[in-house]
Amino acid sequence: MNTFGRIFRLTTFGESHGPALGGIIDGMPAGLEVDFDMVQQELDRRRPGQSAIVTARNEADRVEFMSGIFEGRTTGCPIGFIIRNSDQHSNDYEEMRHKFRPSHADFTYNAKFGHRDHRGGGRASARETASRVVGGAIARQALQRYGITIRAYTSRVGDISVDTPYSALDLDRVYSNDVRCPDESAAVRMKELIKRVKAEGDTIGGVVTCVIKGVGPGLGSPLFGKLQSLLAGAMLSIPGAKGFDYGLGFEDCGRRGSEMIDSFAIMADGSVGTLSNHSGGIQGGISNGEDIYFRVAFKPVATLLKEVTTVTDSGEDATLTARGRHDPCVLPRAVPVVEAMAAMTVFDAMLCDRSSRL
Amino acid sequence: MNTFGRIFRLTTFGESHGPALGGIIDGMPAGLEVDFDMVQQELDRRRPGQSAIVTARNEADRVEFMSGIFEGRTTGCPIGFIIRNSDQHSNDYEEMRHKFRPSHADFTYNAKFGHRDHRGGGRASARETASRVVGGAIARQALQRYGITIRAYTSRVGDISVDTPYSALDLDRVYSNDVRCPDESAAVRMKELIKRVKAEGDTIGGVVTCVIKGVGPGLGSPLFGKLQSLLAGAMLSIPGAKGFDYGLGFEDCGRRGSEMIDSFAIMADGSVGTLSNHSGGIQGGISNGEDIYFRVAFKPVATLLKEVTTVTDSGEDATLTARGRHDPCVLPRAVPVVEAMAAMTVFDAMLCDRSSRL
Amino acid sequence: MNTFGRIFRLTTFGESHGPALGGIIDGMPAGLEVDFDMVQQELDRRRPGQSAIVTARNEADRVEFMSGIFEGRTTGCPIGFIIRNSDQHSNDYEEMRHKFRPSHADFTYNAKFGHRDHRGGGRASARETASRVVGGAIARQALQRYGITIRAYTSRVGDISVDTPYSALDLDRVYSNDVRCPDESAAVRMKELIKRVKAEGDTIGGVVTCVIKGVGPGLGSPLFGKLQSLLAGAMLSIPGAKGFDYGLGFEDCGRRGSEMIDSFAIMADGSVGTLSNHSGGIQGGISNGEDIYFRVAFKPVATLLKEVTTVTDSGEDATLTARGRHDPCVLPRAVPVVEAMAAMTVFDAMLCDRSSRL
Amino acid sequence: MNTFGRIFRLTTFGESHGPALGGIIDGMPAGLEVDFDMVQQELDRRRPGQSAIVTARNEADRVEFMSGIFEGRTTGCPIGFIIRNSDQHSNDYEEMRHKFRPSHADFTYNAKFGHRDHRGGGRASARETASRVVGGAIARQALQRYGITIRAYTSRVGDISVDTPYSALDLDRVYSNDVRCPDESAAVRMKELIKRVKAEGDTIGGVVTCVIKGVGPGLGSPLFGKLQSLLAGAMLSIPGAKGFDYGLGFEDCGRRGSEMIDSFAIMADGSVGTLSNHSGGIQGGISNGEDIYFRVAFKPVATLLKEVTTVTDSGEDATLTARGRHDPCVLPRAVPVVEAMAAMTVFDAMLCDRSSRL
Repeated sequence: MNTFGRIFRLTTFGESHGPALGGIIDGMPAGLEVDFDMVQQELDRRRPGQSAIVTARNEADRVEFMSGIFEGRTTGCPIGFIIRNSDQHSNDYEEMRHKFRPSHADFTYNAKFGHRDHRGGGRASARETASRVVGGAIARQALQRYGITIRAYTSRVGDISVDTPYSALDLDRVYSNDVRCPDESAAVRMKELIKRVKAEGDTIGGVVTCVIKGVGPGLGSPLFGKLQSLLAGAMLSIPGAKGFDYGLGFEDCGRRGSEMIDSFAIMADGSVGTLSNHSGGIQGGISNGEDIYFRVAFKPVATLLKEVTTVTDSGEDATLTARGRHDPCVLPRAVPVVEAMAAMTVFDAMLCDRSSRL
Repeated sequence: MNTFGRIFRLTTFGESHGPALGGIIDGMPAGLEVDFDMVQQELDRRRPGQSAIVTARNEADRVEFMSGIFEGRTTGCPIGFIIRNSDQHSNDYEEMRHKFRPSHADFTYNAKFGHRDHRGGGRASARETASRVVGGAIARQALQRYGITIRAYTSRVGDISVDTPYSALDLDRVYSNDVRCPDESAAVRMKELIKRVKAEGDTIGGVVTCVIKGVGPGLGSPLFGKLQSLLAGAMLSIPGAKGFDYGLGFEDCGRRGSEMIDSFAIMADGSVGTLSNHSGGIQGGISNGEDIYFRVAFKPVATLLKEVTTVTDSGEDATLTARGRHDPCVLPRAVPVVEAMAAMTVFDAMLCDRSSRL
Repeated sequence: MNTFGRIFRLTTFGESHGPALGGIIDGMPAGLEVDFDMVQQELDRRRPGQSAIVTARNEADRVEFMSGIFEGRTTGCPIGFIIRNSDQHSNDYEEMRHKFRPSHADFTYNAKFGHRDHRGGGRASARETASRVVGGAIARQALQRYGITIRAYTSRVGDISVDTPYSALDLDRVYSNDVRCPDESAAVRMKELIKRVKAEGDTIGGVVTCVIKGVGPGLGSPLFGKLQSLLAGAMLSIPGAKGFDYGLGFEDCGRRGSEMIDSFAIMADGSVGTLSNHSGGIQGGISNGEDIYFRVAFKPVATLLKEVTTVTDSGEDATLTARGRHDPCVLPRAVPVVEAMAAMTVFDAMLCDRSSRL
Repeated sequence: MNTFGRIFRLTTFGESHGPALGGIIDGMPAGLEVDFDMVQQELDRRRPGQSAIVTARNEADRVEFMSGIFEGRTTGCPIGFIIRNSDQHSNDYEEMRHKFRPSHADFTYNAKFGHRDHRGGGRASARETASRVVGGAIARQALQRYGITIRAYTSRVGDISVDTPYSALDLDRVYSNDVRCPDESAAVRMKELIKRVKAEGDTIGGVVTCVIKGVGPGLGSPLFGKLQSLLAGAMLSIPGAKGFDYGLGFEDCGRRGSEMIDSFAIMADGSVGTLSNHSGGIQGGISNGEDIYFRVAFKPVATLLKEVTTVTDSGEDATLTARGRHDPCVLPRAVPVVEAMAAMTVFDAMLCDRSSRL
């Protein structure tokens, strides 16, 4: 299932070391004037080689749109696009043809398909997320029309967390540093930690927090189309994601209901609002008009620049030392991917919502 | 979207206070000899009125199968079923016709649909999970054929957690106490806490842990069909669920890659296995043959037996005191629902996997 | 796949001789005031036992709605419904447990599933279309809001055809006779033919023509969502349907393009229209605002009241004489089913169309 | 909805005059050794410029595969591909920017989307079928493994029909003439007719017949997954298709049941077969092991090399004379497209069928 979404649907293809990756955005309504620079900017935020704390693989990640946009505007027809792979060192991976990298998808793809592209993780490579960023950028431009903004940031790396709540941070500053953390003091310490970990040939995990503002009441559906269900599915489809929670999330568990309910009140403008937002902007699977916020946990990258023990596909013990170029910490590059998946989820829910009432 | 799954698909209908709820299981392969007692047992585990720590609403929850089973065996045709509602006190809810209960779905359903069944939460009532339990019971019986077992348990209530890892617990003992916690000592303390909270008219949240054993390598798909993505979407569709993580989950964030990778080794029986299982049995979205384990966080129920402030649908301030019968803690009754959703997810993935190779 | 539609989706269950059949309508927007009498009237038009030229099986076909409608209006939540089976003579079918009726689905279901409900055709029985009529009635009431009407009629039985084009017929008279043919003279001859065929223990086929009026320009989608593709798939899913064409259909083949094109012109009201309508109201898969019309061919029912030769499921030669009650000609009862499928197709396309433009 | 299929799924993109068209084949099982020459051969059969009776547009139609095939074999990951457009005369279409060509999709796309690529029909161009041929070629190679062959041919052009039943024709000779008709005598007359029509600046319609051999009993599903329903939907999605029937199809209507039933008998090899095949190899939506055969009607192409009257998008009367290069008769080029759609339909049904039994 390489398709995401119900009405606004992104289908992607492509492996790390094939000629190109890309996708098809189907279900995009006609009439959006596409800001191509913004699409490229989003891709640049995800692409490797941008700072000392991410992989040195250097891909231009130029997107070529093939269809669905005419004279600068979407036509309602599917938007095909490709992104050429260029900076490939396939030979770095010859050793992985028969050896399974621990905690990577080599073994599991082999078990499932019997035949796999072993170069750079093939389809399992996080390089695939470039296609999602394209889909997300288009969705986001559509959301802007409705006053909806999506902001994600690195809120934790290793044992360094941002303690300030999102509402007290300046989210316009996320991309002002390499770590993509709007708390400058935490960002400095995170960067130090990542450099230290990298120097040791090791890797480190963390958390991305995401905030969606401007969604009015009524988005999402009962049951299996609950907004949190769609967001959780979307986030856990990102390579390296290990957990998701929204609102107070796992912290809710320790609390009493009386501490957690969000009382309704009539706001200054006469609308209904809540006095607190422990719910994270969603009740019964449907948005209530408050900010939607959630967290995504990412594991440390499994590729170490150290010798590890493993086995081969013929069942023999082996050792392996990674030679490819890898991220010591995916968090900085995960930030635009979380935003992209959130944008597609929300925009798709918005299109679905058009059929709620006769 | 009231349908769950891709090949094995459950579609449900029904509100808390209508004549019946039920569903259709489509895509169930022919040939399963249905154990009807087991289906009813699963329903009994979820149904209310079973102990002092859950709601006093007393529903028989007898399932009537209407089709798709002939002479005791599934036919490959859709399995329709209904569960009659009986113990309804709809008058308890007359007040909610115009008042929005805080942190419930009253306001959001109203915002989305403009017209709602206000009695007992209507479609948003957790009563709807009875239909999921029926779907899960059928899926589970199919999984048994393949040696796959699913066990969930209450691993936290409020600030009381089970510290022993699942592998050191006797999961056969889950249903031996009202809390559905296999750690008897923790169970006693949890039960005390729930009673105390109930006496205060308050509620409390917690965590369910779930373990899936017997899944061989190869289940799940790349990208948007990743097993963790499907499980996360499934779990976050359960009423009250606030978070999901698998393997070490949110704990991963603080660790280094070198602490986290699961080295492969040749097992005693010649198969490939891992020496640790921080990954939670999934790599690249596909099972690796180790145990799959994950956690689901549940918020405290929002219905308090205390006066709360709110607003009406005509924009006036109001107060509200719940009169319906409610759970002080959903955890015990969430356990069979988590199992049901896990069973449907895994069985559906198994059917999808039949098309992996030519 | 027992689900029809993309946004407005009907999933059905049920066999001819089980306790009940029914379905779930998911995706119905909130706010329709349901006309229950009209739903029952549609069911009555399909149900057996209504005249001398259809089967004598007598089913009340009372629909019980279980959910999704509150205080008379749809809520946006799934509409579950059941129709009890009552007039069952299951013993009539004991012989079919092991013998395959020629040109019925007994053999093919057996080949596919290995296990089947042999009574009255089980799931393959046309009795299942009652659920479609319920779905169609709801869709139709929604379409009425938008001024869209759907009218089908028997346009051919055996070698008796209606020669007058639909536009010259009074389609309000369709249900004024047992054959459901608005051309009274043809209807009389058709009825005679059906009676004669019935007396011989034989059966006869025919054609239903359907006309959809009031669809504005813009319904349907490029490619696989073409309106004619959706209609063709819908119609060929009806038991006994052998063919579909729209506009001039198979007759187009013999003509030249210059005879067939529908020239555009500015209509009296200033809108764009066409001077002829050979296209049947659809161009490039999308409605152009003219009447949509199509034909559906039905084969003669395969159940003869004569001895036929066949084989058993253990591979032995056998003879078989039908004892169940059967239609000599399905055309009269197919008319409301064609209308129902058309209504669901058009209403679903209308909901899909809501996402065409930003 | 630019996606076809349920498990084996083709999603396509691309307009007639954009940089490229292409698609993604998702759900292709791993392990097929791809015959690239055969894919190109199929494309060549569809591509224009191949004979005097088709359009002179000359496209190389070289397919570039981007992913999902590694070392010559499918990997189970999505197969992305593109086909560059090259021989474009976009200026030929400048006139159509504001004028609606009669019986083309110009007006309906405009009505739906408000914004369209007017060059060469844009997305509505039959050029899009090249992507389907790629998908069909891959499906077909998979079907060959199971001994399934698909053969289509031109069985009618204008008033010239092939009278010999398919079973008496040598279907290996289909591609031996420009018309793609295995009856050489009819082929000669058809070609003459097409040339004459072309000389007049006119066009002509016809019928394609398709035969699928080697499908065992059990393919297809009850209800909305009936094989004839899937095939009808697939065929009517082809540009220019106006009708579909299978088995005796529209001819069934005039017959009695006693003439039409296909009696079962035990075949020489001990299997169950039928003594006739009026059913066209399908009963109750599921294959019975006999040949599956069906017809697809195609209208005459709407582009005439004559002046036609029409209107503009600002509501003014206008005349229009086509200047693009067009087919006088699509039948020859429709043959490989019918085969491609049939191949994808059958292979998808085959993958779906893998879940029929436990």
